[in-house]
Amino acid sequence: MAELPDKGTAFIDWYLAVVEAADLTDKRYPVKGMNVWTTYGFRARRNLDAVMVREIEATGSEAVEFPALIPANEFAKEKEHIKGFDNEVYWVTKGGATPLDVPLVLRPTSETAMYPVFAMWVRSHRDLPLNVYQIVNTFRYETKTTRPFVRVREIHFFEEHTCQVDEDHATERVRSNLGAFRRMAEAFCLPYLTTRRPDWDKFAGAHYTIAFDIPLAGARTLQLGSVHHYRENFSRPYGITYEAPDGSQRHVHQTTFGLSERLLGAIVAVHGDAKGAVFPSAIAPYEVVVVPILGTDSGPGPIQTAEAATDRLRRAGRRVRLDAGDERPGAKYYRWELHGVPLRLEIGRREAEGRSVTIVDRLGRKGTVPLDRLETGVAERLADFDRALRERARTAFAGSVTPARVLDDLKDSVTVRLVGWCGSEECGHQIETAIDGALLGTLEEALPNPLEAPTRCIACGTSDGVRSAIAGRPM
Amino acid sequence: MAELPDKGTAFIDWYLAVVEAADLTDKRYPVKGMNVWTTYGFRARRNLDAVMVREIEATGSEAVEFPALIPANEFAKEKEHIKGFDNEVYWVTKGGATPLDVPLVLRPTSETAMYPVFAMWVRSHRDLPLNVYQIVNTFRYETKTTRPFVRVREIHFFEEHTCQVDEDHATERVRSNLGAFRRMAEAFCLPYLTTRRPDWDKFAGAHYTIAFDIPLAGARTLQLGSVHHYRENFSRPYGITYEAPDGSQRHVHQTTFGLSERLLGAIVAVHGDAKGAVFPSAIAPYEVVVVPILGTDSGPGPIQTAEAATDRLRRAGRRVRLDAGDERPGAKYYRWELHGVPLRLEIGRREAEGRSVTIVDRLGRKGTVPLDRLETGVAERLADFDRALRERARTAFAGSVTPARVLDDLKDSVTVRLVGWCGSEECGHQIETAIDGALLGTLEEALPNPLEAPTRCIACGTSDGVRSAIAGRPM
Repeated sequence: MAELPDKGTAFIDWYLAVVEAADLTDKRYPVKGMNVWTTYGFRARRNLDAVMVREIEATGSEAVEFPALIPANEFAKEKEHIKGFDNEVYWVTKGGATPLDVPLVLRPTSETAMYPVFAMWVRSHRDLPLNVYQIVNTFRYETKTTRPFVRVREIHFFEEHTCQVDEDHATERVRSNLGAFRRMAEAFCLPYLTTRRPDWDKFAGAHYTIAFDIPLAGARTLQLGSVHHYRENFSRPYGITYEAPDGSQRHVHQTTFGLSERLLGAIVAVHGDAKGAVFPSAIAPYEVVVVPILGTDSGPGPIQTAEAATDRLRRAGRRVRLDAGDERPGAKYYRWELHGVPLRLEIGRREAEGRSVTIVDRLGRKGTVPLDRLETGVAERLADFDRALRERARTAFAGSVTPARVLDDLKDSVTVRLVGWCGSEECGHQIETAIDGALLGTLEEALPNPLEAPTRCIACGTSDGVRSAIAGRPM
Repeated sequence: MAELPDKGTAFIDWYLAVVEAADLTDKRYPVKGMNVWTTYGFRARRNLDAVMVREIEATGSEAVEFPALIPANEFAKEKEHIKGFDNEVYWVTKGGATPLDVPLVLRPTSETAMYPVFAMWVRSHRDLPLNVYQIVNTFRYETKTTRPFVRVREIHFFEEHTCQVDEDHATERVRSNLGAFRRMAEAFCLPYLTTRRPDWDKFAGAHYTIAFDIPLAGARTLQLGSVHHYRENFSRPYGITYEAPDGSQRHVHQTTFGLSERLLGAIVAVHGDAKGAVFPSAIAPYEVVVVPILGTDSGPGPIQTAEAATDRLRRAGRRVRLDAGDERPGAKYYRWELHGVPLRLEIGRREAEGRSVTIVDRLGRKGTVPLDRLETGVAERLADFDRALRERARTAFAGSVTPARVLDDLKDSVTVRLVGWCGSEECGHQIETAIDGALLGTLEEALPNPLEAPTRCIACGTSDGVRSAIAGRPM
């Protein structure tokens, strides 16, 4: 197996090599940007979905699924929204040999699929809040270069859509979503930035957009997801009204919360290293790989101990893989490190006789666990591994976001930058030009690495209404 | 709430009324035949999927996901297959405003999406068997009347695709699939027919097709799924070859196994009754509903006991719903019976004081369980309910498949018929004409209700090579 490119100096090449070598995707499918979820990649995705489902359902959201195809006339109802997607939707124009009377759009997101139905579901204030989510694939006709998980044409997507009685309740739901994402990111071991996008960069049709980003190599950033407050922007064109307790008819205020397979790309990008992928335990396709070490004189001990250990861990609910193939142990270690498995159990004659096993985690830390407390020992090691991974990511994050005081500072940024911004569009654009990227927005939550808040706008120098903002170069 | 139509005399009306009244689907979405999975329906679907995943993975299959869009040229490679689907696929012809160079088909099934990639995955006999499955939505431009779950244009679909070293191993995989389906159907409490379809009715491109059907009202039948042996019919056009141990290059033999949301329709159709839906415990969105009964003098006892019971059952892994609303108990009983919940716990003052709860199952059988063994008591009642439901379905099945000895017998069939068939196409078509339906095929597994095997062909009268076959009127 060829060595991986250097993550520090050739980040994209490294990323592409890792997702391929770790068998996470197969991009040889004959439509560009539509990739195959391999067995290994699908396991990671299933675990990712499970974390999202657990956290969103804990906040009172229920799963639904709306059709993938949206009639052209429904799609066109909210003008800003349609403008935002017009150039990147796939059109279904024929059924069999018959041209369709009304062409259909393959959903790029589901506002326009859901809201005509929400208008029928919501009648009274007793029907509110309506908090539903779906995990489906969405489709975008990408014209930019595609990248596995990060920019694809068929996207594995999570979207929550809610209807609330008024603007304040919708604001509350936005807050609840930020909390749910915080708990998800804890499981992914990912520190991130939470910013409110500038008006010129908000989602098509939104009143405002709060987005989650991570810093990547250099000043690059990657958006992980977003939460939108729609006010009545959609409920008016789609007629989603309810009868209030006083008998009046009112429009609901809406919110949405979107995440995607890009999270998997972010997990690989942030945690991966020179040896390959590194998965936090919640996402790892296998949490543990068990490797029996067979010497010429080892007898059946190691294999039997390895099988028994695998079986016990499986019964304890662990995702565990026994690698009893006839390769040498070094080749197995190499493969499972490349695949990012958090823990490796090594079981040779010594371990089989000594009734304990050697555990090596994906960060290279070694220890032993007595077989009679295997389940607890593995659980503790996994928790410890997640903590160490989170800490490593936090340290890297701290080096990736640095303050800038003057526009000139931004020119050759090799990190994402914290800047002061007065909020004017003109200053915003000056910042974007200086960094040759984007003003991601004003900080909505504290940085994971506390930095002193800027007191002046980096562009015009005023201290009036200055906010901490983030500038970078979005991928 | 209006009464349901009579299941016996107005079966379709009854079915449509139940799926709507039990909130399983919303068919008001503005594309005909594309329905919304409501929160309640989605819960049933998720449970259905879990049963399929459990049983197929127990036979060594792993999940993957291939793209939803298939390039026209790949779609056209296997001639029989494309002929079978040509009139019912949706075509994607534009991305944004740009006509696509190669039009894309929305997958009606995934042979033509997967097999170009299988050709790259399979190199050596060591890569075999390749057993993978996916649960995705498929699309068919249905021109017949659509029915929720039973005939829709966006179909929630399970499909296993395998590659085997030779015909015998593929035959073995077909057997394994029949076993997996038997275990699934046990969870669904559904008796069914397993037949080998006549050649003129096999799947487009298959060597042979084995299908699962259930009898419905009258002589009607509903296909639940199918297993296909492809031999080399697809591996040749798609070039899926491997190097055998002797160094020769050989084509793989392939099989597929398909199931769909139609299973949910079948569960509703078979188990439902005059009070609404009836779900086997494995599929029920809620296994248990807890109803506190509040009298004027009942105090907080019932509500507290109900909350505690709900909490305990939830911690024991049960899907449980507390209905503490202020309607009268009768209205709640009515609603949850309509929704098919297997068990209802009634907790009034007497129950709260007596430290036991009343349990009524969806078949109307009543009992009590002491609170100190609530979890075990509920588990036993659910198992008992499933057994009773299975028995009830088996009894109904026995009345739905009856023998016929002469063609004239078939004319006004009010049940599905067991007939003798010599295997000739001519006799087959005579049978189809006589019953004004289809010859489903020859029995591949014994009937759930043992019937004497016919000794002569019902059409030509010969006893040479006569097989037991099933005739009916497929929906």
